[in-house]
Amino acid sequence: MSQKLDRLKDILGEVSDINHAIAVLSWDQQVNMPPGGNEARGRQLGTLGKLAQEKFIADEVGSLLEDLKKEYAGADSASDDAAMVRVAARNYDIAKRVPPSFVNEQAIVTAKAFEAWVEARAKSDFSIFAPHLEKVLELVHKYISFFPPADHPYDILLDGYEPGMKTAEVRLIFDALRPRQVELIKAITQSKPVKDDFLHKKYNEKKLLDFGVDVITKFGYDWSRGRQDKAPHPFETTFSVNDVRITTRFEAENPMATLFSTMHESGHAMYEQGFNPAYERTSLESGTSLAVHESQSRMWENLVGRSLPFWEYFFPALKKTFPAQLDGVSLKTFYKGINKVEPSLIRVNADEATYNLHIMLRLELEIAMVEDGVKVKDLPELWNTRMKEYLGVVPPNDAKGVLQDIHWSHGMIGYFSTYALGNLVSAQLWDKINKEIRGLDDQIRTGDFGELLGWLRTNIHQHGQKYEPQTLVRNVTGSKITHEPYVRYLTKKYSEIYGL
Amino acid sequence: MSQKLDRLKDILGEVSDINHAIAVLSWDQQVNMPPGGNEARGRQLGTLGKLAQEKFIADEVGSLLEDLKKEYAGADSASDDAAMVRVAARNYDIAKRVPPSFVNEQAIVTAKAFEAWVEARAKSDFSIFAPHLEKVLELVHKYISFFPPADHPYDILLDGYEPGMKTAEVRLIFDALRPRQVELIKAITQSKPVKDDFLHKKYNEKKLLDFGVDVITKFGYDWSRGRQDKAPHPFETTFSVNDVRITTRFEAENPMATLFSTMHESGHAMYEQGFNPAYERTSLESGTSLAVHESQSRMWENLVGRSLPFWEYFFPALKKTFPAQLDGVSLKTFYKGINKVEPSLIRVNADEATYNLHIMLRLELEIAMVEDGVKVKDLPELWNTRMKEYLGVVPPNDAKGVLQDIHWSHGMIGYFSTYALGNLVSAQLWDKINKEIRGLDDQIRTGDFGELLGWLRTNIHQHGQKYEPQTLVRNVTGSKITHEPYVRYLTKKYSEIYGL
Repeated sequence: MSQKLDRLKDILGEVSDINHAIAVLSWDQQVNMPPGGNEARGRQLGTLGKLAQEKFIADEVGSLLEDLKKEYAGADSASDDAAMVRVAARNYDIAKRVPPSFVNEQAIVTAKAFEAWVEARAKSDFSIFAPHLEKVLELVHKYISFFPPADHPYDILLDGYEPGMKTAEVRLIFDALRPRQVELIKAITQSKPVKDDFLHKKYNEKKLLDFGVDVITKFGYDWSRGRQDKAPHPFETTFSVNDVRITTRFEAENPMATLFSTMHESGHAMYEQGFNPAYERTSLESGTSLAVHESQSRMWENLVGRSLPFWEYFFPALKKTFPAQLDGVSLKTFYKGINKVEPSLIRVNADEATYNLHIMLRLELEIAMVEDGVKVKDLPELWNTRMKEYLGVVPPNDAKGVLQDIHWSHGMIGYFSTYALGNLVSAQLWDKINKEIRGLDDQIRTGDFGELLGWLRTNIHQHGQKYEPQTLVRNVTGSKITHEPYVRYLTKKYSEIYGL
Repeated sequence: MSQKLDRLKDILGEVSDINHAIAVLSWDQQVNMPPGGNEARGRQLGTLGKLAQEKFIADEVGSLLEDLKKEYAGADSASDDAAMVRVAARNYDIAKRVPPSFVNEQAIVTAKAFEAWVEARAKSDFSIFAPHLEKVLELVHKYISFFPPADHPYDILLDGYEPGMKTAEVRLIFDALRPRQVELIKAITQSKPVKDDFLHKKYNEKKLLDFGVDVITKFGYDWSRGRQDKAPHPFETTFSVNDVRITTRFEAENPMATLFSTMHESGHAMYEQGFNPAYERTSLESGTSLAVHESQSRMWENLVGRSLPFWEYFFPALKKTFPAQLDGVSLKTFYKGINKVEPSLIRVNADEATYNLHIMLRLELEIAMVEDGVKVKDLPELWNTRMKEYLGVVPPNDAKGVLQDIHWSHGMIGYFSTYALGNLVSAQLWDKINKEIRGLDDQIRTGDFGELLGWLRTNIHQHGQKYEPQTLVRNVTGSKITHEPYVRYLTKKYSEIYGL
């Protein structure tokens, strides 16, 4: 019977090769491509996507999977082969349910929706985007109709980003988390604000980029199996376990973002550089879910990169690099500055204390949209009401409100909550890590991240997609995803910073 | 019946998309890829290559082509559709004759041969490469056996690079050319040598690269549809008519090569940027043959870039950029320096007067190998004997002799003569251009290349692969490929420079 598994692996291997080729073409499109190349690149990506899909949903794959599912039905849960079959069967089932004609239609609708969104945001005019969002929603309902009824229709969307996760679980977590964060933020905003003017001076781009490179080299990002380029948006992309690239950007008005986004992307990248090489070209390659991925990026960006021990090590070098900008700024002042909490309008610029509230707002609106409990035209008002309620700020226009994110225009409904779940997982893991690595803070204080990365490799990275996110988190921490460790982490950190 | 053509175009379009994806992955491999990525990239390229091949040699393509060949049998020779069918049928016939198992075997044998060649060249030990070259030759014979007997077995190889070209034609041309070049070189080497020490000083890499960029911008290379990167070897690659990229390199010991190779690659690139966009994703996209391609690169590199009018325009700027290096060097001295003739060992560094002789030597050895008229082990000696005869120099070792070129290790036998044919075509075209563009030298003297590029676009570039090389050259110049214009060009140029 292993002949069947071998045959399946051959086919999935080719599908993986095509998907990685797509990743290379997309990376090039964002990093290098001259403007003229866009139209042909779209066609090339379309053709490769179609080929990968055709190959994957072939009847042969279906019957191989049927046989292999039976064969591995009683297999040890530790069996890699059983996990490969399980994950491939899951993906096959999803792919088979969604007809190619729908995929085409979705590509066309979202291409137009994206264009409309760009214009709507530029003009801060939601009415330009609204009819397109309505079409996107129609497609979302159609997509849901391809699947057997779930506990909640939104489950079907969520499952695409966070395998196995249920809407009810996320709601339970968020409902417990929301009041704790709102309360914390209230306490912070009533305290004396911290100083951060020194972060908004003019910083030299090249020096800042180089500093970021030094930091993630220390982290353990493997440059012999990766590279960093500039792009309009920071992202991580995987061409193989041995070629995992990241991008960064520089914004003059927010220079430090370069540094933190480099750390963030390196977290994603080290996850991808760390999965078991035996999983390459199988259904187990790459990270297991968006939330677990985000737990890695957020850990390196925030729990490490915005910690005091980290800056005890790096601040002298930063000060040496930028003596004028940081003249008279103490380590403590700097540390407080980069951790300043300020309820604000834009999710991607939000600090650790407020970020999750941006997510909760989006999740609630998405669920309402899927339940038909809200009309598209009412979204701006609902958005603004909740912003006021959660964060105490109200967008002056829709560009800074409901129009700020790209996701809906791409048809990505079900995605947002993974950002917040990732934050929670990062703190759960951090608790566990600090129990298992003695003196981690001292290691960080001396720029030594080896044991930390080793722990993540062993406990998270190497497993690839072998375990669903909730299983993985429970295996490692003893609990499914929960809000408590994150709330404790935030409370402790900000109590010290703001003297609560 | 146009339904059949539409269907064929759909399939060929997808094949073209895959092949362009392969080009992107190969470019990335040479320009960006971290060392770790190599193994996976090889697999990805292998999978895409197999997919493109499978799609192209599908029986459906065969029967579509059968029907369409009949339909277009009496078509006007100006018909694009008829040409598409003809070229596609030709490529299909070749692809069908070569079994996938052979393609696999060839990939394996040449991968090993390439490795052996790298080692053999490094150690200057032909015996390391010889057994691999023997295997490559076995494959070459096998490849030939897939085809019906030709006038000469080498025709079958040549045809893969230069459609329609015959071994007998090339021999006739080269036999006429050889004595004329040997004679000219003899006269030159007996003259007073020109000075070129100023070319071998230390030149700043960045400034030289920037100068190259300025030059090819003036030529008309369209940066909105292309880009230049550094790579270990200069090359041009096409992802679509609107995304045509080039690479360059800097060698400290031969700094000016950067400039001339940039011009060279821009010539290839402008050809590819200039084919009729309606030919995209069809069998007519891209240039028609290696020789015609080389005629474009050589024209911009040599007939333009090593001409006196060109430097009348650019020398003041170059001198301003490199005042120390060019201190006291006059335009005339500079012009003579960059055109210095010196019989030497390495083809890629050869000057215009000696280059073709390097090619003739290789062609003769390749034909002898294919005819079984020479044993692999005897190649080094034959090489050295001919070097002495044609160029009056003898390699001190095989690294600088028979081992210098990569081509044979890749199984590319039949390729070399296109380099020399390209030189000849460039001069034929140049004659014609100078009859049709009044005052071309004066235009070049003022840095105006617009009319020249326009002429090439109209007469050569736009046609893509519509005409076979000999037909194209005859249509444009009134004669098939011939040596006379090139000999006249060389003789005139070097008589002036060397006062012959």
